[in-house]
Amino acid sequence: MSARVSLRSRVSSFSHFPLPGPYNQAVGEPLLRTAAVITVSDGCFQGTREDGSGPLLTRLLNDSGFAVVFTVVVPDEIPAISAELRISAESASLVVTTGGTGLAPRDVTPEATLQVCTRTVPGLSEFMRLEGMKQTPMASLSRGVCGTVGKTLILNLPGSPAGAVASLRTVLPLVPHALDLLAGKTEHAKPLES
Amino acid sequence: MSARVSLRSRVSSFSHFPLPGPYNQAVGEPLLRTAAVITVSDGCFQGTREDGSGPLLTRLLNDSGFAVVFTVVVPDEIPAISAELRISAESASLVVTTGGTGLAPRDVTPEATLQVCTRTVPGLSEFMRLEGMKQTPMASLSRGVCGTVGKTLILNLPGSPAGAVASLRTVLPLVPHALDLLAGKTEHAKPLES
Amino acid sequence: MSARVSLRSRVSSFSHFPLPGPYNQAVGEPLLRTAAVITVSDGCFQGTREDGSGPLLTRLLNDSGFAVVFTVVVPDEIPAISAELRISAESASLVVTTGGTGLAPRDVTPEATLQVCTRTVPGLSEFMRLEGMKQTPMASLSRGVCGTVGKTLILNLPGSPAGAVASLRTVLPLVPHALDLLAGKTEHAKPLES
Repeated sequence: MSARVSLRSRVSSFSHFPLPGPYNQAVGEPLLRTAAVITVSDGCFQGTREDGSGPLLTRLLNDSGFAVVFTVVVPDEIPAISAELRISAESASLVVTTGGTGLAPRDVTPEATLQVCTRTVPGLSEFMRLEGMKQTPMASLSRGVCGTVGKTLILNLPGSPAGAVASLRTVLPLVPHALDLLAGKTEHAKPLES
Repeated sequence: MSARVSLRSRVSSFSHFPLPGPYNQAVGEPLLRTAAVITVSDGCFQGTREDGSGPLLTRLLNDSGFAVVFTVVVPDEIPAISAELRISAESASLVVTTGGTGLAPRDVTPEATLQVCTRTVPGLSEFMRLEGMKQTPMASLSRGVCGTVGKTLILNLPGSPAGAVASLRTVLPLVPHALDLLAGKTEHAKPLES
Repeated sequence: MSARVSLRSRVSSFSHFPLPGPYNQAVGEPLLRTAAVITVSDGCFQGTREDGSGPLLTRLLNDSGFAVVFTVVVPDEIPAISAELRISAESASLVVTTGGTGLAPRDVTPEATLQVCTRTVPGLSEFMRLEGMKQTPMASLSRGVCGTVGKTLILNLPGSPAGAVASLRTVLPLVPHALDLLAGKTEHAKPLES
């Protein structure tokens, strides 16, 4: 597991932000939301495969107003995945994984995620598959789950760069409201979800 | 929990029915179906918020041929919710909840429901979300589950009055057949489901 | 349970294939995929009802390039169903069940399937219900699940002949790729699913 540590890193884009704490809170501006990206792939972990999805997701999140404070590449092992989910959830309000959601023998990201989450949000996974199937019926083979632990939302995304980005784009418009609810900001606008 | 008892009540509309037992069974008319409505909300339980959804659901159920024999308001606590689910399932063949299905920290209605149900009916929740998303993509954040315990069907509905009513309307046409199956009336018409 | 053994059988169509092992592998032709069909029905098990769905599914699978190596009729009992799921998964890479997915008191096929599977594939069940609902909203009452155990994919199909065949047809185009992934053939084409 020593390699795990060396692969975990604060992404460079994070250093653009002056304050590592609650950003600009004093001046009344909205807090910058924090995110983490976990790439789950034996090949990427071992260095035999380039991580195409992780950097793309980081960029999409940064472009969408998130500070990506944590990225890591882990092998397809439940203990490694669940450990990084727990660690990343301590510093990020949104954690996305990419990889390990398919049917290959070692694909276990959903199982690791279910171990960590105290509540699932099945509608987000359904929505991602539903939209994905407009591109390819193979999207229905993605076993990804979504759930919450503490005030953090975890989203399992597919492993392919195109699938990961498309899936995140599908649900990204819902994420700010979801994170507000998780953070206890429930007074205003509670549209349909309880 | 003393307030729980005082808030549980037979709704007034129930008193319109002459017989509290199997209605009109002797004369060969169909049994009136029984239903219960559980409002899950800290605010409503504490009296700081009016229960808008519960009465609307009761009215919709009455108008749809159900005798609503049980209504109660409970706080967002798993033990309180699961206790009322079990109690209501003893007297009602359909139990609907409203509230506690979102992402707020105390939203735990699905978790309480899963503790009580012996079988889940995922298609009903999927159907509600699918229809709800035609109104707002926020419907995908509803974590509601549906399931059965004994001969009773339990449906988690969103907490907002509009969302709760729309979700119930979506699946209500399926409920009579579902309750017939649960009651063991399986001889006639078993369309697609087993 | 003695009747169970007598009802389990290799279907006659299987005898058309010359080799019971890896077919034609030596000459480089694709392996014939193996499948099993489990009919779950008290009535069929007791002989009071004809098994309409099982033979139809066997025929559809044979016509789709599968060698159906195992068929069995079991009662609606979790131990019987899960036992046959485990046995059939040893010899078939695709196992389909028909029946026991509804709301009748003894419908427990999904519960038995979840006991056997180590991973679920929720998108396949969602897809079947979604397509089924284009025929009848009653399809949302099918509680079928899909999952994997070892290198075998298990699909719960509805009990009615029409529903079973339609549901299998819906996901059948995805099955070859799913089985390739399960068998560890992950190098080529991994569209959206990790």
